[in-house]
Amino acid sequence: MGLIPKETKFFELFENQTQNAIKAAEFLKDAVKLNKFDEICVKKMKEFEHEGDTITHEIIDKLNETFITPIDREDIHKLASEIDDICDLINVISNRIHIYKIDNVKDPYLEEFLLNIVESATALNNAVKNLKDIKRTRRILEYCIEINRLENAGDSLREKAIMELFEKEKDPIKIIKWKEIYEVAETVLDTCEHVAKTIEEILVKNG
Amino acid sequence: MGLIPKETKFFELFENQTQNAIKAAEFLKDAVKLNKFDEICVKKMKEFEHEGDTITHEIIDKLNETFITPIDREDIHKLASEIDDICDLINVISNRIHIYKIDNVKDPYLEEFLLNIVESATALNNAVKNLKDIKRTRRILEYCIEINRLENAGDSLREKAIMELFEKEKDPIKIIKWKEIYEVAETVLDTCEHVAKTIEEILVKNG
Amino acid sequence: MGLIPKETKFFELFENQTQNAIKAAEFLKDAVKLNKFDEICVKKMKEFEHEGDTITHEIIDKLNETFITPIDREDIHKLASEIDDICDLINVISNRIHIYKIDNVKDPYLEEFLLNIVESATALNNAVKNLKDIKRTRRILEYCIEINRLENAGDSLREKAIMELFEKEKDPIKIIKWKEIYEVAETVLDTCEHVAKTIEEILVKNG
Repeated sequence: MGLIPKETKFFELFENQTQNAIKAAEFLKDAVKLNKFDEICVKKMKEFEHEGDTITHEIIDKLNETFITPIDREDIHKLASEIDDICDLINVISNRIHIYKIDNVKDPYLEEFLLNIVESATALNNAVKNLKDIKRTRRILEYCIEINRLENAGDSLREKAIMELFEKEKDPIKIIKWKEIYEVAETVLDTCEHVAKTIEEILVKNG
Repeated sequence: MGLIPKETKFFELFENQTQNAIKAAEFLKDAVKLNKFDEICVKKMKEFEHEGDTITHEIIDKLNETFITPIDREDIHKLASEIDDICDLINVISNRIHIYKIDNVKDPYLEEFLLNIVESATALNNAVKNLKDIKRTRRILEYCIEINRLENAGDSLREKAIMELFEKEKDPIKIIKWKEIYEVAETVLDTCEHVAKTIEEILVKNG
Repeated sequence: MGLIPKETKFFELFENQTQNAIKAAEFLKDAVKLNKFDEICVKKMKEFEHEGDTITHEIIDKLNETFITPIDREDIHKLASEIDDICDLINVISNRIHIYKIDNVKDPYLEEFLLNIVESATALNNAVKNLKDIKRTRRILEYCIEINRLENAGDSLREKAIMELFEKEKDPIKIIKWKEIYEVAETVLDTCEHVAKTIEEILVKNG
């Protein structure tokens, strides 16, 4: 056992990935809150997505050159790819605001969505941080429960947001635009839940 | 072999899951047929979804405490999770009718969709009922063929329904609402087909 | 080793599948270019989809009767099913043009999408052609890079197309129709990329 150094690099990279997702969500949340969504914001969000891709590639490269992995190879692959989806989708929200030329982004539902996304990505960051020590199962599971709770909250939020959209907005083109933005925002929380499920499966396997 | 009792509890739980999906689909079908979709209906549909979740958790718990499973662990997991999706999506139909405040739900296409969903869930219930005895492969496959047929019928139905929607309906907001309802209804039949495919894979593995 | 003849039939069938996708994409591209999309076109596109299904079933049948496969059974299954999705989705583009009764299909963005799809399916055809000889990893990877490039191009194209759609088109019903057509077209390129990813995973496993 002493000959095989415990490989902790993967967990650090998962931390970097989730950290990057938190930063992206926070950046977008602040832009929405201040109603200041401009070209610089679009560019910055793309950079977060690009940074996410870079870390994901790093994980895959590391995987290809590592002989003995701390958890199953395919689980590392799945985890890396699913966490990457989170940042990609946060950028999709930004992209839709951009291509739909939404002039007034300060929307209470979108703000609440982004707050939930920051919280969910933070819980995820804490979960992967603790994955290093599989004995911390209980603590990790608590973060997973928190992520599930935020996904449920996202479902209700989407329901309320879209209900109000159809009630108050009479312009069908605006309905099309905002409906999609809310749906993508909810999908971010779904994706966080997928990652939580993958983590739970890893715990069961290695438990 | 005598020391390991053949574990049939999983198959009973799959039966409960599919039975619950049938009930949900029938309840919604009747509400649509009678054009009587109200708050009580929304609540009842949510209860079916909740009951589905409870059975699914029961399967996962059972899986975690069972040492030797009758079919592969990951297949039990996949089957439970895919069957659960069916009831979730039936509830999404109800949810959309609710949040879009559809006043006249009596639509011939939606009725036919729900009839097909009842039939597909019934075929699925019969398929999982027979899974207990893997020698009944032929009979199980016949149910899977029936599920595939109903999925194809769903494709055509969706095509006809949406074609007519765009021909007759001039209000773009109503088009957005009904297009989504038809699409979700078709996705329920797709999901039944996914389950049928998973069952076929299990038969091949254990054949 | 001499007793087990190297099974190359699977690779030929993957070639047939991708060849069929190329033909479908080319046929639709020409119809769009000539602005001649009629009932005959719809029928022809359905035939390509049907031919794709036939080849896919041939692969599954072959898989069930083959004892030793050149690559993992589940990888053959996954590859066959993902390549099949490409032709299915090309037919969905045709189906939407049909059911939405688009009278003027000659759209520069749709044309460019179809050209990219032809190119991506061609790169895929070249990749699977070389899979027979796993030593050609480098060449295969180059085709995969080309497929990734075309998927990125598809993302940008979708962005430009939908941006212009919302800028110039004032009829919300037309927006709904064309938005979906562009989205499906982009999903075809996504699906090609999934196949490329699966090929890369196969190379790593067998490398």
